[in-house]
Amino acid sequence: MILGSLKSPSLDGELILIHPNRRQAVRASSVAPCLREALENWKTAEPKLKVLDQALRAGNAPGTFDLVEKDLQSSLPRTWLFADGSAFIHHIKLVRKARNAEPPETLYTVPLMYQAECGKFLAPTAPIPQRDFSHGTDFEAEVGVIVDDVPMGTTPEEALKKIRLFVLINDVSLRGLIPGELAQGFGFFVSKPTKALSPFALTPDELGAAWKDGRVHLPLRVELNGQFFGRANAGEMHFHFGQLIAHAAQTRDLVAGSLIGSGTVANEDSTVGSSCLAEKRTLEQINKGKPETPFMKAGDQVKIWMEDGSGQSLFGTIEQKVVSV
Amino acid sequence: MILGSLKSPSLDGELILIHPNRRQAVRASSVAPCLREALENWKTAEPKLKVLDQALRAGNAPGTFDLVEKDLQSSLPRTWLFADGSAFIHHIKLVRKARNAEPPETLYTVPLMYQAECGKFLAPTAPIPQRDFSHGTDFEAEVGVIVDDVPMGTTPEEALKKIRLFVLINDVSLRGLIPGELAQGFGFFVSKPTKALSPFALTPDELGAAWKDGRVHLPLRVELNGQFFGRANAGEMHFHFGQLIAHAAQTRDLVAGSLIGSGTVANEDSTVGSSCLAEKRTLEQINKGKPETPFMKAGDQVKIWMEDGSGQSLFGTIEQKVVSV
Repeated sequence: MILGSLKSPSLDGELILIHPNRRQAVRASSVAPCLREALENWKTAEPKLKVLDQALRAGNAPGTFDLVEKDLQSSLPRTWLFADGSAFIHHIKLVRKARNAEPPETLYTVPLMYQAECGKFLAPTAPIPQRDFSHGTDFEAEVGVIVDDVPMGTTPEEALKKIRLFVLINDVSLRGLIPGELAQGFGFFVSKPTKALSPFALTPDELGAAWKDGRVHLPLRVELNGQFFGRANAGEMHFHFGQLIAHAAQTRDLVAGSLIGSGTVANEDSTVGSSCLAEKRTLEQINKGKPETPFMKAGDQVKIWMEDGSGQSLFGTIEQKVVSV
Repeated sequence: MILGSLKSPSLDGELILIHPNRRQAVRASSVAPCLREALENWKTAEPKLKVLDQALRAGNAPGTFDLVEKDLQSSLPRTWLFADGSAFIHHIKLVRKARNAEPPETLYTVPLMYQAECGKFLAPTAPIPQRDFSHGTDFEAEVGVIVDDVPMGTTPEEALKKIRLFVLINDVSLRGLIPGELAQGFGFFVSKPTKALSPFALTPDELGAAWKDGRVHLPLRVELNGQFFGRANAGEMHFHFGQLIAHAAQTRDLVAGSLIGSGTVANEDSTVGSSCLAEKRTLEQINKGKPETPFMKAGDQVKIWMEDGSGQSLFGTIEQKVVSV
């Protein structure tokens, strides 16, 4: 199934089901008013959603309408937990090099993870507000999974069975604020502002063979101002999603609807480009002696999407412009 | 007003208003089903709650019932953001000494803050689950404020006006996991598990003269296994709540219902005791050469409450026992 949330007076948006052609949809509020509540009652909501989805696909769901992507909120407009991992070792090595910091000793054995803003995601086409250009606004293109209730102590293998939905994430980062904040010792907070999710959230079956070994084996496409920026394969995660979920649930129950992020998708092969500016700047520093690509300024636009083998955009497009506020 | 949440089938609990005698209450679900939704619609909910509160205090609110504290969830059972500060400099100095870490250079100018678990608070009398005694289970007694919508860039002075409610917090910490986790560079995650809030949440007027200069000038009472542990005054915050809220809102909007914590309440005067085990252990290390007080083991019970000048318990009692799971 392909799920999304129409903009509505509710902070949770209104739940819709989307046709595989991504051009038609139907309100699913007869099943649950919003995706958050569907996730909190997945056992009863899922079979009802499947019935409606079959009707939508068969062309006989009453109320089917033409979908306009800009009418959509982030597929899940808000949730209770966003535990963002950093599972691409190549990314960790590069960004630490950029700030003259060593990778942790446990780089290959314990996932890096921070708790991120999730109380109000930006819409996928909403501007990224910038208060100060010196904050060093950057995008980070990621893949995320939304889970059912995960009891504390769940194993990585069991954790994989708790995945209900996949999304893409733009984890906006303020690079200029990170060194000072990390020097305080408490991790990220002001350096990691509000994010956006993809317009569509997909159940695992929608990914077909691309979903295996706990990883999504497809390139994540990134453009900056209409130019190629990256197409790193999301399958190159060192830790798979089951390991990230299990890490997050090591000492707490995760509630239904919790979002677990992959961290910035990055590949060893530099010809595939990058999924954030910080990496590109570090490579420029290494290869050319200094970073050349500036951080985002007002008017700059980032576009993030993922295609299947046939060129179908799976999650819709995150397409955000930086605006001064 | 004194607000709380009855345990109910809803993950948000059921909103109640509590009489100043703390022995009677009335359901307020005619105004809003839960405290979270009341906060999200405070402008319309507050006047209606006040009318009901007046009836409750006058003894003529239909459905008034005798309150049993163990029927209560945390006053706000779950929310969208818990930004936990660390505003008591004495606490920072002591816990950093305990792990041979230096306080940050910005100790007196920039608040320490981390984003904490808030998707499912423990009930105030619910056990603290312990998977592994070597995790070093500790309590941290704090004061917290729950805010209305706070736009990005709000000043400390304006931020004070956004405070809707006060609560107490037991910010459970796993001391054994902190050094390893902080060495990774991303701050706390697995070392900061699920917390509990006080049974009652109070509007600012309920604190009377104790609420001034953005601080709550009352001792926070802590007992461990029925013995005195601390009565540090919460007024000794270096950063006041307006400064903490403004810091949290530096680069993001805070949504209505966001919780901002003071950090562990700690005073320079060591005769008032401590609000967490880590501090007491550090003082033992300094004064006796080694820590003597162990971290919490199964069966240990912590009790956290705050009294006004007349001995009235303001927020009810957080009373939690550690249990092996």
